[in-house]
Amino acid sequence: MASNTDQNDAIDSSSTFTPKFDSAGLLTAVVVDTDSNDVLMVAFMNREALDATIESGIAHFWSRSRQSLWKKGETSGNVLRVTEILVDCDQDALVIRADPAGPACHTGARSCFYRRLENGSLVRVNS
Amino acid sequence: MASNTDQNDAIDSSSTFTPKFDSAGLLTAVVVDTDSNDVLMVAFMNREALDATIESGIAHFWSRSRQSLWKKGETSGNVLRVTEILVDCDQDALVIRADPAGPACHTGARSCFYRRLENGSLVRVNS
Repeated sequence: MASNTDQNDAIDSSSTFTPKFDSAGLLTAVVVDTDSNDVLMVAFMNREALDATIESGIAHFWSRSRQSLWKKGETSGNVLRVTEILVDCDQDALVIRADPAGPACHTGARSCFYRRLENGSLVRVNS
Repeated sequence: MASNTDQNDAIDSSSTFTPKFDSAGLLTAVVVDTDSNDVLMVAFMNREALDATIESGIAHFWSRSRQSLWKKGETSGNVLRVTEILVDCDQDALVIRADPAGPACHTGARSCFYRRLENGSLVRVNS
């Protein structure tokens, strides 16, 4: 997660991947469409989901509600084929760039972020 | 956060903004550069940070480490001027589209996501 020091520290150019899971054992994963660069969804990964994602090339998450490994699209077929994984400065958040096989949102929308906040109300946007 | 049901539910077209804070009182906020559409950082907002962001047009977060309101760029001047706020399907994550006044990352990088995972190691990317 972004540091809040606002100091211009030396860039951590470490090449060692040491993901920092939080107290619940989770990282934040932001899924971005490889083509449009739009954010499709935000979810969490534990170590098992991260390993499954890296090994299979298909995005896996940890379902907090079901407390189980969640292969996105296992039922719907709308899997997310990973093209790139970016790691943030303190290694507790990932950007998962992916090619979606279909709508990423369970509502059928291309992206879960299909509404904009406008004067206190939500307005549908194209996504 | 994305639902894990993978069901094609009716799209929630509600126009009512009812942000769902987690048990710690937080939402996930993904900051995206308005121009490049790149993810710049991921942080958290509580109600106070969300209200301050909406009222001021400058991104505010909740610092989990300091347990205090954090106006991004207050010290460095590298504020994030909000251009659009997108809300996800279940209203527990936000995409904050913003114009950054400078590097978003405390390391001096344009984005916190300046490394790619490649064969188990981290490789610097242009960001």
